[in-house]
Amino acid sequence: MTESAQVTLAETPTDKLALSHFAHGTAILPELEDGQFLVEVKYLSVDPTIRGWVAHDTYLPKIAEGEVIRSLGAGEVVASRNDAHPVGSRVSGLTGWQSMVIMDSAFPIPDGVSYEDALSVFGMTGLTAYVGVLDIGKPEPGQTMVVSGAAGAVGSVAGQIGKILGARVVGVAGTPEKCAWVTDELGFDACINYRDGSIAAQLREACPKGIDVYFDNVGGETLNAVLGQIRDHACIVMCGAIANYDTGKLPPGPANIVNVIPRRARLQGFIVLDHYDRARDAAAAMARWIGEGRIKTRFTVTEGLDSAPEALLGLFSGQNTGKTLVRL
Amino acid sequence: MTESAQVTLAETPTDKLALSHFAHGTAILPELEDGQFLVEVKYLSVDPTIRGWVAHDTYLPKIAEGEVIRSLGAGEVVASRNDAHPVGSRVSGLTGWQSMVIMDSAFPIPDGVSYEDALSVFGMTGLTAYVGVLDIGKPEPGQTMVVSGAAGAVGSVAGQIGKILGARVVGVAGTPEKCAWVTDELGFDACINYRDGSIAAQLREACPKGIDVYFDNVGGETLNAVLGQIRDHACIVMCGAIANYDTGKLPPGPANIVNVIPRRARLQGFIVLDHYDRARDAAAAMARWIGEGRIKTRFTVTEGLDSAPEALLGLFSGQNTGKTLVRL
Repeated sequence: MTESAQVTLAETPTDKLALSHFAHGTAILPELEDGQFLVEVKYLSVDPTIRGWVAHDTYLPKIAEGEVIRSLGAGEVVASRNDAHPVGSRVSGLTGWQSMVIMDSAFPIPDGVSYEDALSVFGMTGLTAYVGVLDIGKPEPGQTMVVSGAAGAVGSVAGQIGKILGARVVGVAGTPEKCAWVTDELGFDACINYRDGSIAAQLREACPKGIDVYFDNVGGETLNAVLGQIRDHACIVMCGAIANYDTGKLPPGPANIVNVIPRRARLQGFIVLDHYDRARDAAAAMARWIGEGRIKTRFTVTEGLDSAPEALLGLFSGQNTGKTLVRL
Repeated sequence: MTESAQVTLAETPTDKLALSHFAHGTAILPELEDGQFLVEVKYLSVDPTIRGWVAHDTYLPKIAEGEVIRSLGAGEVVASRNDAHPVGSRVSGLTGWQSMVIMDSAFPIPDGVSYEDALSVFGMTGLTAYVGVLDIGKPEPGQTMVVSGAAGAVGSVAGQIGKILGARVVGVAGTPEKCAWVTDELGFDACINYRDGSIAAQLREACPKGIDVYFDNVGGETLNAVLGQIRDHACIVMCGAIANYDTGKLPPGPANIVNVIPRRARLQGFIVLDHYDRARDAAAAMARWIGEGRIKTRFTVTEGLDSAPEALLGLFSGQNTGKTLVRL
């Protein structure tokens, strides 16, 4: 008999997300069936997209009240009726917020890759940044690329990839400390603090030639400011809109959207799930770039399954830097 | 000595456009130089984009106060020092709002093509619709395509091309008469009147499966309503935003822009000037479709150069159906 500690959705949020929307409990897992394997979860990946999943249908169905919170995670196989995932092997996948999970498919974690890296640069986070920059935004050497959520999991990697491609990269983050990390350690050319006065004026100073590529993780006022300063044939990579997530009502849209016509610009939304075919290329590139010291990472790690809701809330209050993980 | 009657920009509009922003006068044209030819203007093309040109820099420099209003037009060559455009030949090009114009380049109008058609289906209007639908929006058979400004010059052609491609085409227009023309004569599957209650509710009824392609000529609230109802991988062809043009201040942007992320949608702005390489294909296709009765046109024609400002104002008050022209 296997017990699994779980965090479930107690109540669907209609406005700001709060700890009271989550419940903590325990479930008894059934016996393994053929093809299944039992994973002891070691780390959970805490991602902004979960905010959508708990509220309404998105690109995946809404998490129902009473259901375990859907989440990426990683752990060790402790029982198996699946030859691809023997006992002792390590996997990542949709574990959910629980201590033990029965799975029938997952990604093996290669030897030498830590759980942390498997859930960040070598996981969906890294793939999102890779696809968004290389396949969609495609900054050219000398072009100006702006990245919002620059100190976040995806944004910090996306900006570093922009630098590798030769772009001038300008970050947007929410504290002086984050801006300093992004410029001093990650090598961005500049980083503006969106809480420090006019975003548009700061962008104009940091991007005197205008903006060719915008990797958008936040939406809201930053998106509008960028749209007012795009160059011809600019591409807006619509990766996330965290400024819009933790609210019951959508904020005003970007009035400067009209500017995409004279500037012949493109806005492209994407979901990383559609781009698994690029996972092998992305992982190979990440391994090389990390080895060369050109991609650096930072983690915000909280301890214990029960800390997961608070870690998620931290994403929306701007508490976290780099990839947010829960260690079980 | 050649006199040319002209309409010039008297004053740059800062809010609603009015007749008082225009001045009427006469200029004496200089002698022709080598390579130039003198055109007696017969028709002017009245296009929403002129509203941008008089107000600020767009994809072309702002028209300065005192300058002739920039405009497409067509006429007959009455004197020539350019072998490509002999006396008696007909041309279309950037004539401006004037009765006589010295040009050094223009498009020849083929025999059998009327001035009206040269400035509409066989001109920039047709090319805009052609490129926007075939090269950008690319509706597939059975998909749902929405066209705003459906009774306008570009929208009416774009929707008919959508029908030729096999899409279910839903128009958005501003009067019952326009809606009736679009459905009964042009063969759109449905047409909603944006002045007749909730655009979103009407669209939901007319597009029960959601929207795959949106050919946007108006921006504003219609764009927002569409963004709330797009299907996966939808494409928004950003052709115009007439709802936003005749106002000093930008209206609110589309709050539903966030929906492009879960729906993996694309918004693509374009300017027809970039697509002259498609002009020959577009003209050939239009000739075939018109011959087959699959593309129909209508014109709103005003008489005399001095009527041009009023014809332009008519675009923003929704007076005009089909292509708006001035006959000199």
